[in-house]
Amino acid sequence: MVARYLGRLTPLNEALNMLTKKARPVDSTATVASWEAEGMVLAEDVIAPIDVPPFNRAAFDGYAARSEDTPGELEVVGEVVIGALPKVRIGPGQAAYVSTGSFIPEGANTVIPEEDVERVGSKVIVKKHYDVWKNVDPKGSQVKKGEVLARKGTVLTYPDIVGLLAAGVGEVKVYRKLRISLIATGSELYRPTSPREVMERTLRGEVVETTATLVRWFITRYVPWAEIVEQLMAPDSPETVAWYISRLLERSDIVLVTGGSGPSRVDVFYMLPSLLGGELVFRGLDVKGGRPTTAITVKGKVVIGLSGYPLSALHIMVRLVYPLLRWMGNVRQCPPILYYARVDGTIQEGPPRPIKVVAYFDSKGELWVRPLEAKLQLSSATVGFPLANGVAFVDRREYRHGDIVPTLLYSIPHKFNEPGIAAIK
Amino acid sequence: MVARYLGRLTPLNEALNMLTKKARPVDSTATVASWEAEGMVLAEDVIAPIDVPPFNRAAFDGYAARSEDTPGELEVVGEVVIGALPKVRIGPGQAAYVSTGSFIPEGANTVIPEEDVERVGSKVIVKKHYDVWKNVDPKGSQVKKGEVLARKGTVLTYPDIVGLLAAGVGEVKVYRKLRISLIATGSELYRPTSPREVMERTLRGEVVETTATLVRWFITRYVPWAEIVEQLMAPDSPETVAWYISRLLERSDIVLVTGGSGPSRVDVFYMLPSLLGGELVFRGLDVKGGRPTTAITVKGKVVIGLSGYPLSALHIMVRLVYPLLRWMGNVRQCPPILYYARVDGTIQEGPPRPIKVVAYFDSKGELWVRPLEAKLQLSSATVGFPLANGVAFVDRREYRHGDIVPTLLYSIPHKFNEPGIAAIK
Repeated sequence: MVARYLGRLTPLNEALNMLTKKARPVDSTATVASWEAEGMVLAEDVIAPIDVPPFNRAAFDGYAARSEDTPGELEVVGEVVIGALPKVRIGPGQAAYVSTGSFIPEGANTVIPEEDVERVGSKVIVKKHYDVWKNVDPKGSQVKKGEVLARKGTVLTYPDIVGLLAAGVGEVKVYRKLRISLIATGSELYRPTSPREVMERTLRGEVVETTATLVRWFITRYVPWAEIVEQLMAPDSPETVAWYISRLLERSDIVLVTGGSGPSRVDVFYMLPSLLGGELVFRGLDVKGGRPTTAITVKGKVVIGLSGYPLSALHIMVRLVYPLLRWMGNVRQCPPILYYARVDGTIQEGPPRPIKVVAYFDSKGELWVRPLEAKLQLSSATVGFPLANGVAFVDRREYRHGDIVPTLLYSIPHKFNEPGIAAIK
Repeated sequence: MVARYLGRLTPLNEALNMLTKKARPVDSTATVASWEAEGMVLAEDVIAPIDVPPFNRAAFDGYAARSEDTPGELEVVGEVVIGALPKVRIGPGQAAYVSTGSFIPEGANTVIPEEDVERVGSKVIVKKHYDVWKNVDPKGSQVKKGEVLARKGTVLTYPDIVGLLAAGVGEVKVYRKLRISLIATGSELYRPTSPREVMERTLRGEVVETTATLVRWFITRYVPWAEIVEQLMAPDSPETVAWYISRLLERSDIVLVTGGSGPSRVDVFYMLPSLLGGELVFRGLDVKGGRPTTAITVKGKVVIGLSGYPLSALHIMVRLVYPLLRWMGNVRQCPPILYYARVDGTIQEGPPRPIKVVAYFDSKGELWVRPLEAKLQLSSATVGFPLANGVAFVDRREYRHGDIVPTLLYSIPHKFNEPGIAAIK
């Protein structure tokens, strides 16, 4: 039986370690086409199967020839089209037309740019000397067969896939995606169907479901190695919530529940372990913003009860669930989620908490964050309100002007001279 | 008639200004449900239609009472459920059970946490004084009716939408999305259908289409206010490419063509203005990595010929097309795309160019980028190869150790003590 009220509050790092002792990382793998592996986690190092480039390749449009024949007059004996093998061999005094990316014919070791020659009939006149491998990418100059292209534990992004395909890698061994389900609890929640009802129902105290959807936004945007199995809403009934969790756990590695984790008479989460036959991992975190967060395991799977407040749920997603998802997904490298910004002003010492900030780049490119005023920092104050564009995650310490703080930066105004922006008149 | 060879190379800022003189920003708007407006650009400021919170709201689970009655013994006269209007009024010596987020009944001005009272039958014993508005979010304390919630030109993210819905905003006026089409040109291109063919065909000089797909990745990830109308491949035939462009322009604001922008005999782009009845904006940019980039307009719509090399195309997307898309989309604030990192080492003066880097956070949270060695910096060297995880965009200047450079950071290894990461044992 889990206590209704929060007892000793668990520090974040301790909570994370407790979870990694109970949860299981994904261990099933599959071999998939490399061009379809975006967002997947490599289950082994990828080794280059061929040299890159795979042949001596022209780096310029022009004439492939022998360096030792330049300067001089050369006889054009053929042309090499991109995507085809050369049909000619370059002997003394000979050249072949090549375009950027095409093979260099055997015998040639330099490329003279088309603009720099005079063409007279079947001959080209080269006016100066061209060194060996000038305007040529020699075979294997970028990667040698057998070198490591990408490491186990890397979440593949499309830029990585571009590299793999250029090296002839057609398939990769990856872990299956993490499966996550979301349940938004709260009898006051609804999903609007017409714009006009939103204001009316808000004035009556009803609440649009946004917390679980914000968690979903976070996962979709920052956790590409996970997939959302299902997202649903449930009323404040412990039996109902337990039934949905038991069904979703059959198809999910982790179930995240928003709302209902507190100690009030309408909160359901503390009753779940006994209803589900689960085991308590921790009840209550030593933070401000997500304090009642509770985690249980059911047959080795994880159920986490997050705050019903969007900002508090986001706080625990970034600080606790995100590292857990990396660990469960076997991730060692992935797209970044945080910026490290300098505090414009000061932040008083207090528990780990989310701070709504106005973020901006100064003219040198330094990112600064100015905390919104105190009344807008309440847990119940929604994300982004009004005109905040980021959330800073502070530790238990004082921050002085210029100190660095990790920040989720979801939007930025165009005041800084980013490439191109300042140029528009 | 456009010259086949590149003439005077246009500086980036000048090219961008030339484009904004020929292109047209989106001007059609629509009113859409706020919860479906993610990625859309606000066409007017959003004003709060009600106070936030819309009523005095409990910030804690406990008993709503009158501050002046504390400490003391209070009679519990009712309960307020979240999502419902209070049915009771609090008079002297009375209290009502409330849970976090519910209305505070009329007459009450403080909330005593449930854990801090002793309940005896229908009474609660409060041991100390609670100030007015303690554990209460008063009506309008976060936002007042009539205040600006979000500015015209903001690309709405889900955190913004959470805020709008909490303020009762059911609909917003937005611009329609920018429509972009992509054509990958090059007779050597193919899309693989089986993993095994990739290595074989790479050795024969054929090339998997990745450049247009990388451009699509960039747009999908960083330009939420645009939609991809169509993406297709075409051989090196000027007539074929011209025909596709003319058809795609009917449904697109901008067509991006990868490959074929150079001056070689197989390049098609320089022939397009005459085939399409278009007008040249510029031919050739003063950069390294995307130098042959060419832009034309056809009946006020923009066609840009990008490099066929992934990294060069990405370079011009970040430095030229992205600011153009912001301008065409009426965007003034949007999700950030770049990090500003410190150079670990030095970068020699040279034309604006993309530099492949290994990026990492140091223990203080500063982001550093170490350029890969010179041979891996060729335009033809693919993105991300091997083990690069970002691209720095350098201007025409020398960078010394510690100087700041804008960087596209698509992946990051877990060496830094980000929240939670270092904690896992």
